[in-house]
Amino acid sequence: MSRVIDLNADMGESFGAWQMGQDEDLLEVVTSANIACGFHAGDASTMVRTCSAAARRGVRIGAHVAYRDLAGFGRNFIDVPPAQLRDELVYQIGALCTIARTAGTRVDYVKPHGALYNAIVHHEGQAGAVVQAVAAVNQTLEQPLAILGLPGSAVLAEAERTGIRAVREAFADRAYTADGTLVSRRLEGAVLHDQDQVAARMVELVRSGTVTAVDGSTVTIDVESVCVHGDSPGAVAMARAIRTALEADGMDLRAFA
Amino acid sequence: MSRVIDLNADMGESFGAWQMGQDEDLLEVVTSANIACGFHAGDASTMVRTCSAAARRGVRIGAHVAYRDLAGFGRNFIDVPPAQLRDELVYQIGALCTIARTAGTRVDYVKPHGALYNAIVHHEGQAGAVVQAVAAVNQTLEQPLAILGLPGSAVLAEAERTGIRAVREAFADRAYTADGTLVSRRLEGAVLHDQDQVAARMVELVRSGTVTAVDGSTVTIDVESVCVHGDSPGAVAMARAIRTALEADGMDLRAFA
Amino acid sequence: MSRVIDLNADMGESFGAWQMGQDEDLLEVVTSANIACGFHAGDASTMVRTCSAAARRGVRIGAHVAYRDLAGFGRNFIDVPPAQLRDELVYQIGALCTIARTAGTRVDYVKPHGALYNAIVHHEGQAGAVVQAVAAVNQTLEQPLAILGLPGSAVLAEAERTGIRAVREAFADRAYTADGTLVSRRLEGAVLHDQDQVAARMVELVRSGTVTAVDGSTVTIDVESVCVHGDSPGAVAMARAIRTALEADGMDLRAFA
Amino acid sequence: MSRVIDLNADMGESFGAWQMGQDEDLLEVVTSANIACGFHAGDASTMVRTCSAAARRGVRIGAHVAYRDLAGFGRNFIDVPPAQLRDELVYQIGALCTIARTAGTRVDYVKPHGALYNAIVHHEGQAGAVVQAVAAVNQTLEQPLAILGLPGSAVLAEAERTGIRAVREAFADRAYTADGTLVSRRLEGAVLHDQDQVAARMVELVRSGTVTAVDGSTVTIDVESVCVHGDSPGAVAMARAIRTALEADGMDLRAFA
Repeated sequence: MSRVIDLNADMGESFGAWQMGQDEDLLEVVTSANIACGFHAGDASTMVRTCSAAARRGVRIGAHVAYRDLAGFGRNFIDVPPAQLRDELVYQIGALCTIARTAGTRVDYVKPHGALYNAIVHHEGQAGAVVQAVAAVNQTLEQPLAILGLPGSAVLAEAERTGIRAVREAFADRAYTADGTLVSRRLEGAVLHDQDQVAARMVELVRSGTVTAVDGSTVTIDVESVCVHGDSPGAVAMARAIRTALEADGMDLRAFA
Repeated sequence: MSRVIDLNADMGESFGAWQMGQDEDLLEVVTSANIACGFHAGDASTMVRTCSAAARRGVRIGAHVAYRDLAGFGRNFIDVPPAQLRDELVYQIGALCTIARTAGTRVDYVKPHGALYNAIVHHEGQAGAVVQAVAAVNQTLEQPLAILGLPGSAVLAEAERTGIRAVREAFADRAYTADGTLVSRRLEGAVLHDQDQVAARMVELVRSGTVTAVDGSTVTIDVESVCVHGDSPGAVAMARAIRTALEADGMDLRAFA
Repeated sequence: MSRVIDLNADMGESFGAWQMGQDEDLLEVVTSANIACGFHAGDASTMVRTCSAAARRGVRIGAHVAYRDLAGFGRNFIDVPPAQLRDELVYQIGALCTIARTAGTRVDYVKPHGALYNAIVHHEGQAGAVVQAVAAVNQTLEQPLAILGLPGSAVLAEAERTGIRAVREAFADRAYTADGTLVSRRLEGAVLHDQDQVAARMVELVRSGTVTAVDGSTVTIDVESVCVHGDSPGAVAMARAIRTALEADGMDLRAFA
Repeated sequence: MSRVIDLNADMGESFGAWQMGQDEDLLEVVTSANIACGFHAGDASTMVRTCSAAARRGVRIGAHVAYRDLAGFGRNFIDVPPAQLRDELVYQIGALCTIARTAGTRVDYVKPHGALYNAIVHHEGQAGAVVQAVAAVNQTLEQPLAILGLPGSAVLAEAERTGIRAVREAFADRAYTADGTLVSRRLEGAVLHDQDQVAARMVELVRSGTVTAVDGSTVTIDVESVCVHGDSPGAVAMARAIRTALEADGMDLRAFA
């Protein structure tokens, strides 16, 4: 396994008068920023501000695309027809790409948000829509976009079939089953809250490519990025602890190639 | 005056289940299509479809940007702060630019819609926001965008100061005052409905650069484009009549350079 | 079976500048109007205008509630949590109830729209949300609201358990299976287009409570209302043909009690 | 001047995942709650929750109606035609009235929000729309709604002409000119930040019906309610200080009759 790792987090999720997240703090911790594109969060000025802040710190930018769902923050599955979803994703990616360029930087990858992220683990139609959207945009770019997603997901499989770079990620604060999938949030123990434990797990993950599953077994998790959260002061503290532990272990924190 | 003229019309103003306009018919008539960008009309799939249809016919594409106002169709003035407006315009232009490229074409100009179009005739702050948005996007493009607007407007003056190509347009079906401005819609006779009269006026306009004002005087109108409408079968018939008359007079109907 | 029948249709589905439907014509045909409440269609002025038009003709009013989904016209399933859905439905019903009262009439029933209508045939959580919303509103009304839905649906079963009047409806232009359910729209022949055939079937339905299924068998369909469409000139003609045939057969066209 | 005073504050301004305000704390301080109705803020579940919380504490409820403007939080003037504005206000008031009733309480007044509040100080058309909306709703209610606004505003003058109860309010943290109007926010010293000073001014206002203007003169301010803020911990502390000072002076804090 690599001694190089990317840390990514969601960002730019304010909207109009409503503030969300600790973006300034989080940008000091992560190497990649998933920036909301206006459909679940992120008005245009927030997108501009977040792209500029990421550019100043050399943090890589990803398009955090979502269902059209401000009221639900993109957290509810919407059975939108794939052709329409594809077009809505091109729209969002296009808006962010241009905003990033006006901020002197660029978008390097796409990470679907919330319920869309979960849906395209299995939903072939919507996973195909995500891949088609990225493929369409990539035809217009010199530097093609990657897709960041869950190992074993339909969307990453389809991305690879289509020749799109598929980047696998782990979730720092989630428990894993013996077969390497996430423990359902409906089960107790699905989300880990102990900062030291989470940091130690991520050191193990990056050092050896393994993590201890809920049944105590050791499971191989092959990822290039780790997702951390920043929606509360406690979340930022945990993100910092993870970064500090990885650096102390000599890992190279760097956006994926 | 030039014997070359551009005909432009608003297009892509459907939204979801709601249809508007006679786009297919109108694309046979015009040389430039002002395509809605999702803020006053134009969902993403409509934008894709309209860009593709314009590309097939070699019709030039402009970004028909607007206030964020689906419920009002962008027809009501909104006193949005210029910095926020600028970012919302970059967002809209960016989305359409990417969609146009995925359709094998590109965006060549920006034409503000509705109440925004009217506001930036005089409103310096919002006119500046439009120019700043286009200037910001132009820094990221090989082929810079022009701005299409009303002769004598604040936005075109500011565009020229900033080094952005300013394209002046006339309205085919509007009456003009003796000093070359549009007769207010609140006054009787502001909108012309006779197809032959309108066509004859446009022939005069392109041939001699003049139009007969409401007081009977002859006024000079220096434009590179003429705006026609397509929101009803009658409107498309009038647009066709204008094009036929111009071609019969030997004019060269062509998108502005 | 009753010789009395209600005809209902969706109405008030314009939004802002976008027109939809042939409401004025349709109001001459139906006895109940399902009026959109602003979430899938129907801005406030359209709601006022449609309530007033229904009041003038003595047509009963129902709240045509929907998912929050203007872009999808409420046609895509949204996995919104039931508690949130319940509150959104109370909001919509409340807005229409007040608008109806200012127009001198009142809301008498609730008919969920589109994907929500389909979901609550089987989705217990969302069906419960609809019933809870109506039950909550009914506590504040002298005249309780009924729920109009599909025979055999989860929502009507739950309504009856809760003491809410459940009104069953048939679809005039839909084919039925031998067990009395609708033939899936994905199958050929699911939607009937012949005006005379549809009118004759509805006469049979109201006269004898039966309809001929796709396999030729006769199936019992126990309903108090028949849903007709008005979203095209052809649809209104079919609705008129149905009404004419029912009246010629001596049926009493009247809103359900 | 009365020794009885109402304290009002804006509330229920969260939306979906975005939290805003310190509603629980503020409900301990005020006697009237201006609850957002979904157009500038306040999703349906927030409206339900806020109405229930106000009902539990016996706090009076007002409809905090606004322009349709989630992205701008209702802070930008929109030149919406009065007839359309009236209908949108009836919609919002109707939704909140029903939600309040399902929460076992009721709406007693309407207070326009943000840019609409400011517009109707002078804008006769929109002021008329607010009054017409309330008048229309009042025809359907046993207990008519009042309108809460700025002394000397067009909307309160029109309300009085129409027979609607007009309730005047002062702003606790704003400086006043010698003629009793608010010092413009664009001028230094327009907003007061010293908690003790603000509390002392409000005691003077309620005790003697006067306040010290920016030029040192004493000006008469005849109000029945005082508006306090709750959008930050500091704001709630100031609101508490005002209440404490008023109670210490023996004032009767009570919702206006």
